[in-house]
Amino acid sequence: MNHIPPRLVGLDWGTTSCRAYLLGDGGAVLDRRLDGRGVLPLSRSSENRSAAFEEELAELCGDWLRAAPGIPLLACGMVGSNQGWAEAAYRHLPVDLTERPESLTEVPTALGRLFIIPGLFKDGRDDSPTDHPDVIRGEETQLLGALPGDSEAASPPAVVVLPGTHTKWLRLEGTLVSDFVTTMTGELFGLVMQHSIIARLAEEPPSPDLVAFDRGLDTVFAADCGAAPAAPADVATSLFSARTLVMAGELDPAAVKDYVSGLMIGAEVERFARCWLGEEGRTGRPVTICANAQLGSRYARALGRAGVASELAPDDAVVAGLWRTAVALGLIDKEAS
Amino acid sequence: MNHIPPRLVGLDWGTTSCRAYLLGDGGAVLDRRLDGRGVLPLSRSSENRSAAFEEELAELCGDWLRAAPGIPLLACGMVGSNQGWAEAAYRHLPVDLTERPESLTEVPTALGRLFIIPGLFKDGRDDSPTDHPDVIRGEETQLLGALPGDSEAASPPAVVVLPGTHTKWLRLEGTLVSDFVTTMTGELFGLVMQHSIIARLAEEPPSPDLVAFDRGLDTVFAADCGAAPAAPADVATSLFSARTLVMAGELDPAAVKDYVSGLMIGAEVERFARCWLGEEGRTGRPVTICANAQLGSRYARALGRAGVASELAPDDAVVAGLWRTAVALGLIDKEAS
Repeated sequence: MNHIPPRLVGLDWGTTSCRAYLLGDGGAVLDRRLDGRGVLPLSRSSENRSAAFEEELAELCGDWLRAAPGIPLLACGMVGSNQGWAEAAYRHLPVDLTERPESLTEVPTALGRLFIIPGLFKDGRDDSPTDHPDVIRGEETQLLGALPGDSEAASPPAVVVLPGTHTKWLRLEGTLVSDFVTTMTGELFGLVMQHSIIARLAEEPPSPDLVAFDRGLDTVFAADCGAAPAAPADVATSLFSARTLVMAGELDPAAVKDYVSGLMIGAEVERFARCWLGEEGRTGRPVTICANAQLGSRYARALGRAGVASELAPDDAVVAGLWRTAVALGLIDKEAS
Repeated sequence: MNHIPPRLVGLDWGTTSCRAYLLGDGGAVLDRRLDGRGVLPLSRSSENRSAAFEEELAELCGDWLRAAPGIPLLACGMVGSNQGWAEAAYRHLPVDLTERPESLTEVPTALGRLFIIPGLFKDGRDDSPTDHPDVIRGEETQLLGALPGDSEAASPPAVVVLPGTHTKWLRLEGTLVSDFVTTMTGELFGLVMQHSIIARLAEEPPSPDLVAFDRGLDTVFAADCGAAPAAPADVATSLFSARTLVMAGELDPAAVKDYVSGLMIGAEVERFARCWLGEEGRTGRPVTICANAQLGSRYARALGRAGVASELAPDDAVVAGLWRTAVALGLIDKEAS
């Protein structure tokens, strides 16, 4: 173990994986374990779901917990869903991420006290067929970690996008989340590249092909619906070009995956920039992108095409977010925070 | 067998199934066999693909062919693709469907001479990132069958939509196809309802739920991107509402499938009406829908929302199309046509 005293075990416990972080004073990462199993495999594998989660926790970081008895555990993500370990209530918008929630889900375990961070809920409007309810679990913590440390004083980003299986676009006023929208681009991309007719003709690229990605963006951003008859550039339609361009010898099978990535990320970003950001996107603060460098740079390229400036948040935002939440919850002694 | 002399065996041989029709004078259907295997199972099942197709043909309608030696066989669909029995060349737009193609693929079989109808190819434009090549195989025959019989004299429909796994939108001048666009709404709908997070919460409806379908249309057609910030109504985004509305108790799990159908067909039709039909859609002739009554009525409802009138083509258009093509090809004696 480390000679710096551990203060918190932070858990980013999502649908497919669990990542554990041992944190010391100021949120310094003392150790990490990234290969824990997520909610989906755990809830499938066992009759006694609670026992399955506890065993996984013990296996992943039991040694940390035995070496530092009484250390608090704080988790975010789908572990708090109705498919998870224990259901954590949602907080309804608007929500200040640095404010202590009214209720906090605590799970007593043999290894210590585990707290689960609540997700966020946006209420729909009954009188509107387009304002649907929306939910977040886990990204609220990543988001908090991506905001500047002195966010109460400084001007934090006004719009943050967290690309992933279910990408989240959020609007903030300081640390207050005022609006967000989920889009399933990432999941649809996975389905298309695994199961569709496009998957059958695509070959795995030797390395990411940004030229093919940009060609996908071209298709989306050059489309001009105003000049009818124009070929529609929505995903369902432009996707078929991945097949016909290969048939016509105009697209390499190894370029299909990145071309489709460009089509789909392009369609999402074009639509969000036009409908959801509007004028604000071109004149406001840069959009903060919270993703790994590879995926983040794709969103940055697409936003650039839409005339929207962007910046990439630091890596491991979720770790900073777990620490800041623990401090806000009073789980950390003042002098260690 | 029938006492009316058979003149043609027509085969609608697609990706997943093969339907065979025994036709007499004037294209009258004397018998039909609808349960043949399609190109995908046949090309997977055998080392000797050609033998697999011939065996399937013999099993499906060998008795017809032995009873009427020398009768011609005419096939349309993916049987003419590079995954099919023999590759039939494409005809490049513009194409008059009643004109004899320059080349015709003939497959000699032990049971008779089989001809395969060529598909249609739309060339892309190298200088345009949005004008992609596009292809049709099989729908060209269905389309010909859907046009009025005296189409050279009368005014045929100017726009035809053939909904399916890969929906085709076509523009015609008489029997001349001048443009078409493929969109993969049907395939994406299948992927979403089989493999996505939405599939996990949906329950099979006891019967088609058009109220839920219309609710999906509402989401699409009420969206007003002009009034930013508006929640985008593209498929990837609106799809997530199928999950959150169920979570919020505002959508029955048994209504999810038809709600998603409304979202996806609505998004396709809204986009085609706006970008591809333009003003013509609201002022021109009704759009002809070539589909079974169930799917056809969904497209009609969505087109109605977009202010576009429509009419449903008669059932079994592909049979009429096979007959008319056989006549155009000279496979049928003049007096029998």
